[in-house]
Amino acid sequence: MSNGINWYQADLRELKFVLLEQFRYGEIAGRAPFEAWGVEEATAVLEETYRFAREVLGPLNTSGDREGCRLEGGQVITPKGFKDAWRKLYETGFKTVSVRPEHGGQGAPHALQCLIEEILSGANPAFNMYPGLAFGAAELIAECGTAAQVRRYVEKMYNGHWGGTMCLTEPQAGSDVGAAKTIAIKNGDGTYRIRGTKIFISGGDHDLAENIIHLVLARAEDAPAGTKGLSLFIVPKKRINPDGSAGQSNDVQVGSIEHKMGINGSATCVLNFGDNDQCIGELVGGVENAGMSQMFRMMNGARIAVAVQGLGVLSTAYLNALAYAKERKQGAHFKFWKDPNRPRVAIVEHPDVRRMLLEMKAVTEGIRALLVKLTTHLDRSRQLAGVDDPKATYHRGQVELLTPIVKSYSSDAAFRLSAQAIQVYGGAGYLKDHPVEQCCRDAKIFSIYEGTNHIQAMDLVGRKLGQAGGAHFQDFMRDIGEFVAQHRANPRYGSAVEALAAAQESIMQSAMVFFGWSQSDKLHLIPLNANRFLSLMSELAIGWLLLDAALIAETALESLPATHSDRPFYEGKRWSALWFARNVLPDVEHGAKLIAAEDSSPVEIPLEAFSTH
Amino acid sequence: MSNGINWYQADLRELKFVLLEQFRYGEIAGRAPFEAWGVEEATAVLEETYRFAREVLGPLNTSGDREGCRLEGGQVITPKGFKDAWRKLYETGFKTVSVRPEHGGQGAPHALQCLIEEILSGANPAFNMYPGLAFGAAELIAECGTAAQVRRYVEKMYNGHWGGTMCLTEPQAGSDVGAAKTIAIKNGDGTYRIRGTKIFISGGDHDLAENIIHLVLARAEDAPAGTKGLSLFIVPKKRINPDGSAGQSNDVQVGSIEHKMGINGSATCVLNFGDNDQCIGELVGGVENAGMSQMFRMMNGARIAVAVQGLGVLSTAYLNALAYAKERKQGAHFKFWKDPNRPRVAIVEHPDVRRMLLEMKAVTEGIRALLVKLTTHLDRSRQLAGVDDPKATYHRGQVELLTPIVKSYSSDAAFRLSAQAIQVYGGAGYLKDHPVEQCCRDAKIFSIYEGTNHIQAMDLVGRKLGQAGGAHFQDFMRDIGEFVAQHRANPRYGSAVEALAAAQESIMQSAMVFFGWSQSDKLHLIPLNANRFLSLMSELAIGWLLLDAALIAETALESLPATHSDRPFYEGKRWSALWFARNVLPDVEHGAKLIAAEDSSPVEIPLEAFSTH
Repeated sequence: MSNGINWYQADLRELKFVLLEQFRYGEIAGRAPFEAWGVEEATAVLEETYRFAREVLGPLNTSGDREGCRLEGGQVITPKGFKDAWRKLYETGFKTVSVRPEHGGQGAPHALQCLIEEILSGANPAFNMYPGLAFGAAELIAECGTAAQVRRYVEKMYNGHWGGTMCLTEPQAGSDVGAAKTIAIKNGDGTYRIRGTKIFISGGDHDLAENIIHLVLARAEDAPAGTKGLSLFIVPKKRINPDGSAGQSNDVQVGSIEHKMGINGSATCVLNFGDNDQCIGELVGGVENAGMSQMFRMMNGARIAVAVQGLGVLSTAYLNALAYAKERKQGAHFKFWKDPNRPRVAIVEHPDVRRMLLEMKAVTEGIRALLVKLTTHLDRSRQLAGVDDPKATYHRGQVELLTPIVKSYSSDAAFRLSAQAIQVYGGAGYLKDHPVEQCCRDAKIFSIYEGTNHIQAMDLVGRKLGQAGGAHFQDFMRDIGEFVAQHRANPRYGSAVEALAAAQESIMQSAMVFFGWSQSDKLHLIPLNANRFLSLMSELAIGWLLLDAALIAETALESLPATHSDRPFYEGKRWSALWFARNVLPDVEHGAKLIAAEDSSPVEIPLEAFSTH
Repeated sequence: MSNGINWYQADLRELKFVLLEQFRYGEIAGRAPFEAWGVEEATAVLEETYRFAREVLGPLNTSGDREGCRLEGGQVITPKGFKDAWRKLYETGFKTVSVRPEHGGQGAPHALQCLIEEILSGANPAFNMYPGLAFGAAELIAECGTAAQVRRYVEKMYNGHWGGTMCLTEPQAGSDVGAAKTIAIKNGDGTYRIRGTKIFISGGDHDLAENIIHLVLARAEDAPAGTKGLSLFIVPKKRINPDGSAGQSNDVQVGSIEHKMGINGSATCVLNFGDNDQCIGELVGGVENAGMSQMFRMMNGARIAVAVQGLGVLSTAYLNALAYAKERKQGAHFKFWKDPNRPRVAIVEHPDVRRMLLEMKAVTEGIRALLVKLTTHLDRSRQLAGVDDPKATYHRGQVELLTPIVKSYSSDAAFRLSAQAIQVYGGAGYLKDHPVEQCCRDAKIFSIYEGTNHIQAMDLVGRKLGQAGGAHFQDFMRDIGEFVAQHRANPRYGSAVEALAAAQESIMQSAMVFFGWSQSDKLHLIPLNANRFLSLMSELAIGWLLLDAALIAETALESLPATHSDRPFYEGKRWSALWFARNVLPDVEHGAKLIAAEDSSPVEIPLEAFSTH
């Protein structure tokens, strides 16, 4: 039951497998710049995070959803228990595991932080947005701020003393960020007066921390139109005193909070800056018109964070549905369905329920592998910078390429498969007595915020495929090609590997089709097919990583005694990979054919033909 | 905005097209047994229903969702305005349009009632469940009850004087209906004392009508186990006085009401029958152990009604998303996306938004066509009974075959495409300020109740395909075959018709594959692939009906002047059909290959391998 204290579940064995066995955390751990973080430290912190998530965050997930946030005297009040959980969370240090020591952090790899965040978001996605945004904003200032800004803000934001937000969207400027009208007027002392309205600001106000540091995209006087003229400003909710403490109000007003389908524990605010012309901001890094590229540093992290959120919610939906399916008895074995004298069985024995669960298992594991791969690339690129720069560049390129893919695929899967979890429960899943309907409501926003999934798809086909002369894409394909060459003769997996090879070939062809369109008068076919191409790329990536995991598992099985308790886990890897290879990988070839067919009906239909209104 | 009085929209031109032009309502109208209902009467009632839905039901959809139902002193209180709407609805006579005159109805075809119900459910799906269940229960008593039962109950239930329910599910008996434990003990006077608990009872109690007539599946003393031993009882909430009025309480208690993801205006009740052993029921038709076949008469109607609900909600989501997309400006034309000096355009100009909308349009129209086809078969079978019995049998067979298909496809599409409507809106769609998030929440239950979609799929592959020696399926395929033969040379639609033919061929092969499994030791592959087969059958049916509609539209276009206001509507039919033929029909061949591949991984994976818990 969702009100029970321990409804949150994670499969730690699986998390450790992905980190340690599949992505060989041991190779990067314990070495600069991650000296303090060996394998033992990593597994210990995952176990502690899990305990904390079950005891502190999980129990607030349902209550936070039901209670929601409210606005009282211009101040957002978060749901009961959130403030206490915030304090406890920052006491644990989980939010600073991957933060660099010079900012008060513990210097661990990102891949480890990724799994910590999966657990925190899986237990309470709405709550974890507040610290998540503080983290992202701190990271941006750490990377782009002046030395004084770094000193003033970063550590306090990393350690939960202050919160943080990213303020891009305005009523007329959503996907079209460049249409932002918020303005910044020079005060003459290096600071600016900010005036404008921002909407959809997650954690735009809350009662969890002493202060909130807003990062606000605004246009300085006389700056050019569009994204080129946007600058990024640090705008604290309360002005900072000379001693570094939070002082008087900075004329940032909460206009209202939104009422939403889900993530009700997270306050989504309308923020009015400078209604009384008293809102003071300072330029990030002291440079004008660099706002978009600065914001994108946070945005890329935020996109990965949304993928992690999706993974967390999906894993929760899967493991709860699995637990329910093991416990809930209904009907006899399918071969004797109509025989009332046969024993009743748990619904996990019914083939269709099992099919739904195996899909959820495979996709969850595939997304987790893709995220740990991506963050491991990030860690390796850091580790190799200055040591082996070409390799560092390769790793950085894979991060670029995989970010839009994992953001979209994870967010779509989280919603679709949370709905499938409801289906596993049957009518019970539609009730608020169980956690899965909330998973589904919470997950719907993931495909929209931090760049809609179509924005991701356009980023992939319009930017990432051709980035660095196509090197990131070619590297990715080469890695798969090497895997195929190595394993296509495998007796158990040979035909699955062939399916992977066929999918890869289809992606190659589709990429050429897109390239052709970009050189032709068929430009409209690019946005029309971008989402489909992103889906197919995702399926290729997931199919590959599941097969990779299965082959590692097979090797492990060879040396395990027949009664070893790890055997079922490794066997599970086999079935995730085979199910995906047989049921999903063939979609890639099929989808590529649809792309090549060049249907343009959506742009050919006249607007008046959509309805007679 | 969802709170505005006129957010509900239907496209009456399209409804009239499907009824009058595609399914030639004129051929059945005005002739026995539908003498009073010509084309003019039909269009007039659709227009009146639409006006009523916009003015009375639509405005209560949002408020009903927010307020929900509550239990006060053992009585369910429905949301504000529902009682008044109930009274007004029954004053209009819309709910008795297709009811036979001998039961106080107006004797119109079912196809017309189907579209009336689409409008009522589209405006307020939760509200329309109360009269919908009363209707279904009345129909069951009308068909299966004794003459005295028909006299006592039917007219009062059809005219809204009394409500009605169907009570099947128990805590241990959901999909496994035969596990029901509610018992019926003979009183010796022909009546029974009912004892047991039923759950998930839609409209199980409410304050809309003077009485509620429950139809309760229960097991008479000494009846056999399983479904064979179930009898159906009429159990009024208040006992009926000798003069036919509602009298004293009949010991039916509302245990609780459920808190759900959606359809919050519809009270989902736990009902306790006979806690004080004072609950009196009478056998429907006076016969024991006939409960399942009796209940299935209501159930089949209820399954069609769920498909209609799905269509109503989907159409609402589509038309609202379309209206928003026409109005909401964001970004420049995609070719000049980054140019801030280009004019901003409505998002309906963006190819990806248009792609989403065209999919919603095509699927909505396809489901509507399938439902009007199905209900027209029902009407023709009635009209031809005793006149041309083989034809009547053909029509009845198509109703049997298409019921599980349309129930599943419509319910899945309503949920999936309501979520797509949210995506069209972007962040705004996630807010309760707009109606689409509620569409999505409301729609999720449609794939579960009245038989989960897997139950439908098993009904299709396990029963309907082989019913009457396979005649229904063969008739359906023959009809498509004739269409293909007639139109495959059409210059504009030839390749789309070829895609239909290929899909048909694939379905034929898949049906043979299922037949082979049923004769082998691969029985588990049937439930594993049933949902996929049902999806493919649906796509074949929808693809066919969209092409059929398009060809009718082309003929109409030939004789219309270039400036005629109907031209855009007919052109819209063309693009629905072509989009579906190019983007969805090829799925059938692909899906059939996956079926033929006989993957059984979901039953091969050991249970312990799903997770390490």
